[in-house]
Amino acid sequence: MSDGKAGAKVDEARLWQRHMDMAELGKTPKGGVKRLALTDLDNEARAKLMAWGAKRGFKSFIDPIGNFFVRREGTDPSLPPVMSGSHTDTQPSGGRFDGIYGVLAAFEALEAIDDAGLKTKRAIEAAVWTCEEGGARFPLGTMGSSVFAGTNKLDEVLKMKDHDGVTVGDALKRTRAHVPGAIDRPLGVPVASFVEAHIEQGPELEAQGKTIGVVTAIQGSRRFVVEVTGEDGHAGTVTRARRKDAMFAATDMVQALRKHFMDDDDRIRFTVGRFVVEPNAMAVIPGKVTFTIDFRHPEEEVIVKLGDGVEPLCQSLRGPCQVKVTQFMRSKPVPFGGLIPGLIQSAADRFGFSSMPILSGAGHDSIYLAKVCPTAMIFVPCEKGISHNEIENATPYDLAAGARVLTEVLVELANQ
Amino acid sequence: MSDGKAGAKVDEARLWQRHMDMAELGKTPKGGVKRLALTDLDNEARAKLMAWGAKRGFKSFIDPIGNFFVRREGTDPSLPPVMSGSHTDTQPSGGRFDGIYGVLAAFEALEAIDDAGLKTKRAIEAAVWTCEEGGARFPLGTMGSSVFAGTNKLDEVLKMKDHDGVTVGDALKRTRAHVPGAIDRPLGVPVASFVEAHIEQGPELEAQGKTIGVVTAIQGSRRFVVEVTGEDGHAGTVTRARRKDAMFAATDMVQALRKHFMDDDDRIRFTVGRFVVEPNAMAVIPGKVTFTIDFRHPEEEVIVKLGDGVEPLCQSLRGPCQVKVTQFMRSKPVPFGGLIPGLIQSAADRFGFSSMPILSGAGHDSIYLAKVCPTAMIFVPCEKGISHNEIENATPYDLAAGARVLTEVLVELANQ
Repeated sequence: MSDGKAGAKVDEARLWQRHMDMAELGKTPKGGVKRLALTDLDNEARAKLMAWGAKRGFKSFIDPIGNFFVRREGTDPSLPPVMSGSHTDTQPSGGRFDGIYGVLAAFEALEAIDDAGLKTKRAIEAAVWTCEEGGARFPLGTMGSSVFAGTNKLDEVLKMKDHDGVTVGDALKRTRAHVPGAIDRPLGVPVASFVEAHIEQGPELEAQGKTIGVVTAIQGSRRFVVEVTGEDGHAGTVTRARRKDAMFAATDMVQALRKHFMDDDDRIRFTVGRFVVEPNAMAVIPGKVTFTIDFRHPEEEVIVKLGDGVEPLCQSLRGPCQVKVTQFMRSKPVPFGGLIPGLIQSAADRFGFSSMPILSGAGHDSIYLAKVCPTAMIFVPCEKGISHNEIENATPYDLAAGARVLTEVLVELANQ
Repeated sequence: MSDGKAGAKVDEARLWQRHMDMAELGKTPKGGVKRLALTDLDNEARAKLMAWGAKRGFKSFIDPIGNFFVRREGTDPSLPPVMSGSHTDTQPSGGRFDGIYGVLAAFEALEAIDDAGLKTKRAIEAAVWTCEEGGARFPLGTMGSSVFAGTNKLDEVLKMKDHDGVTVGDALKRTRAHVPGAIDRPLGVPVASFVEAHIEQGPELEAQGKTIGVVTAIQGSRRFVVEVTGEDGHAGTVTRARRKDAMFAATDMVQALRKHFMDDDDRIRFTVGRFVVEPNAMAVIPGKVTFTIDFRHPEEEVIVKLGDGVEPLCQSLRGPCQVKVTQFMRSKPVPFGGLIPGLIQSAADRFGFSSMPILSGAGHDSIYLAKVCPTAMIFVPCEKGISHNEIENATPYDLAAGARVLTEVLVELANQ
């Protein structure tokens, strides 16, 4: 068991200042951050991290998809490293903590361990995974981690384009040029274990008054798009009997889906986030409605059973309209088993931080790291659970607490 | 009773050709018409009508809001004229018949009466009412007829602007310049009676196999906008208990409103045509929904009772959200009583045209003319009831049939 010396060296003020420094890259008037993946702002975040690492003698590495690693060497460089990290990119109206906290907490751990004068058997690396935020610039999210884990193929991803037609491959050339001192590394090097720190992006820790969330799993999820096609018509003239009103068929479906996705213990997450009406004119009976379903649950059995019920339910309620249901995303729940959650819990207890087991409702790079090594996550509270928003906020104390726990866990894992 | 000689002179081919000529002004690739109010295309429609009239020796007149009149003089020019007409402007993706049919049928009546060599006691005028189509260019619809009737004030309407900031007043200067030979006339001259021919814009005549609709009334209507405000949130993290989901509150309201606006005899017209979600992102719980209600019925009592129920119903279903209900349009049913519907019926019978009493679901310039003189409407079928659409269609036979009936009715009214 680690003795807490390294965690005690975590410097709350330094960690906060690093967040504020990074928040300058893409600062928005409302105090948020817009730092889209592989833009120069995002590239500068890697360069900054490399420069900070160089002062400590840490070497930096980059792989073919732009994943970036700052390494504190271990006593046995031949062993696979322990990694920690997250992402530097944000949504267009993002905040100062989502993603970047996981990167800076990992880097803070390297510095704290350095300041404590500890040697570890394995190297420890602070990782930046490329383009975690899907749809902000490129369509694919968790791009770097999924390519790292072999789930997405490098050559296919390099061809993907942003809204302006720039490919990932071309963007990566600029990224590479921003960190000339980094050492090239092949994709998918062996990793001993991975721990990701992240703000919760939900309200539970704050509501329960807890500092540390020991993440038990990332929920599984399925996304569908439902297209309901009726017939446009004049609002004043067409009788009810003759209408093919896509709006009413769609609201029938939404209401029935709400009942379908109801549970007593409030573990199902069901959201109709997009709902687009055509022609969307006051005096025209809607001829078409397209809406999305986002459904998440920690248990695969529930994901399968309730998700499979979506299409039959929508078909049964189409009335005089046509309906087409397409599933376009499906991810299985990722349970964080093994030893690491226990290490997180013990480290939190030793520091006297209140903690609770918690589910991750959002997806993270850890989904893909879990495919290649033992993986876990540490959550810290964020104000009112608000994230993907310029007013996203967290306290210096909570951020440091998460970094302290992370530091202790990394030391233990690096000595295994 | 008229003897049918004038109606028999209606020339089906001429009337059809005039429609095709007018359809050149603003012709769209899909075969529809885009002729926004008081644009040069719309102005040219007035000029064309004036030129056709001049060949017959008919004089043209224009009033301060751009309403345009082609007059076949009566034997007693001091008597108020009988008028017939509609509008030349269209929606952005409009068809070849909505509005323009009423203008051309009236002009065809003048020509047919002329061809029959008939003299009438009163003058008969074919009228073009300015900007009937609200929201297409200027926000106000039935602009010309409502100013003519004194419901809207000329000086206020002249200041209204289109999307590009052009005022009605400035647009009217171009309109005036397009018809230099027209004689200025003050607003709101006395009118003996008014008859408007129009395509049905609904499917009933076609479905019942009838040629002539004797319009009994224009429905009353009320329009509301409902703003539901909840709170944005992450689709994966926020529990059901903590959500303020504007989408679900809004669909609750829409469903309850459907029950509220249900009747056994299918006379209520209830439409939710616009439904706008914010931020409208797949993985974000909607923080705001704004939707519209369009409700119509021929009986004022029902309009009052059911319309007044909208706000309390929405408030009762707001759940954890806030709701604001605003009524922004209210028009009373306009019954077409008096003698004219009977004259229409008799004329149809004399020609052997099948007919039926019918409600107008849409609003028309006749709403305002009915405030100043005895008024009625004649409907003819349009294909599948489709209107405000580039594929809007009608047959030469039906258009001529409506014009024949109109001609007979105008002769009778002009001799009263």
